[in-house]
Amino acid sequence: MPRFPLVIQNLADSFSRLPGVGPKTALRFVFYLLRQKQDDNIKFAKAIEMLGSSIATCHVCQNFSEKNPCAICSDKNRDQAVICVVAEHQDLPVIENTGEYLGAYHVLGGVLDPLHGITPDQLKIKELIYRVQNNNIKEIVLALNPDLEGETTILYLTKLIKSFDKNSVIKITRLARGLPIGADLEYADEVTVSDALKGRKEL
Amino acid sequence: MPRFPLVIQNLADSFSRLPGVGPKTALRFVFYLLRQKQDDNIKFAKAIEMLGSSIATCHVCQNFSEKNPCAICSDKNRDQAVICVVAEHQDLPVIENTGEYLGAYHVLGGVLDPLHGITPDQLKIKELIYRVQNNNIKEIVLALNPDLEGETTILYLTKLIKSFDKNSVIKITRLARGLPIGADLEYADEVTVSDALKGRKEL
Repeated sequence: MPRFPLVIQNLADSFSRLPGVGPKTALRFVFYLLRQKQDDNIKFAKAIEMLGSSIATCHVCQNFSEKNPCAICSDKNRDQAVICVVAEHQDLPVIENTGEYLGAYHVLGGVLDPLHGITPDQLKIKELIYRVQNNNIKEIVLALNPDLEGETTILYLTKLIKSFDKNSVIKITRLARGLPIGADLEYADEVTVSDALKGRKEL
Repeated sequence: MPRFPLVIQNLADSFSRLPGVGPKTALRFVFYLLRQKQDDNIKFAKAIEMLGSSIATCHVCQNFSEKNPCAICSDKNRDQAVICVVAEHQDLPVIENTGEYLGAYHVLGGVLDPLHGITPDQLKIKELIYRVQNNNIKEIVLALNPDLEGETTILYLTKLIKSFDKNSVIKITRLARGLPIGADLEYADEVTVSDALKGRKEL
């Protein structure tokens, strides 16, 4: 006898494919939905179904969007000569939410990680270089995580962009490193404190 | 400008209603689905849609099932005179997976927790009593968690069933308490060790 009705088992299988969801959590999700109103579940189902048909990838910045080019790339009020390079789609709203940035974006789709088989050709680097070569770009902000893979990608991109930009017209920048707000100096690691010292600001 | 296309935002909202899923995890799920094959997503959507139409609650044991009464309640090879009472739907397969139990089940839909407003009328206790009064029940196994709410529910149900069962025909049992397999006596709490001592078995 199957442990659960097939409909429940199938849905649990679909849920357990999501990142960080194991078979037990997947079942919890299914039982939660079973207790919900059928209308809400149909809305949920429709939302998943509509993903493929209504979401496209912006051919300029590689972000998911309903339009192509996306709202940010086609916004005349934003400085299209500044490109903020982020690793994942999720990173874009983090920058956007600060309200401090009014340029364009470029979503790489990951960071270089040769040990796990992520090489430059698997990221949207070709597309970034195309933008750099075919537009008057003033600045590229490399907004990648300050970890091993992020730093490797920053080094790689910096070298690559400089090789195309013989006259050094493009300013390449990275996010500042230092103590995060609310941090405790006592527990901060040496690299962070060293970064904070090197980048100290006059008051 | 909305932070994300509406389709993405709507789906993230649906995901974030699932237990233990916050807005960030919900977005991770959506971005994961965006990278999947459209076919798989449609299958996922269909599975959610089908929940309401193909899953019913068994009117006997209150378990979710494709049939009513469910496969377990209508199985002639199982001892329908023994009822194992579990709190949640998820608990049923845990008992079933042991392969040790060949009776029927009853899903309460929770445990008594007056502090959080869960009173007897919100659980499927009425349905349990109906089964006890209208069938020749030999044994009721109360397979509830050995925590405060579970123990309260065990006490309540025992008293209630005994009040209907004047001649004490029905044996009411509970799961044994003791050391779980692989436990370390050194780190076991006093109550568990005390339970294990009281329930010690001759070899």
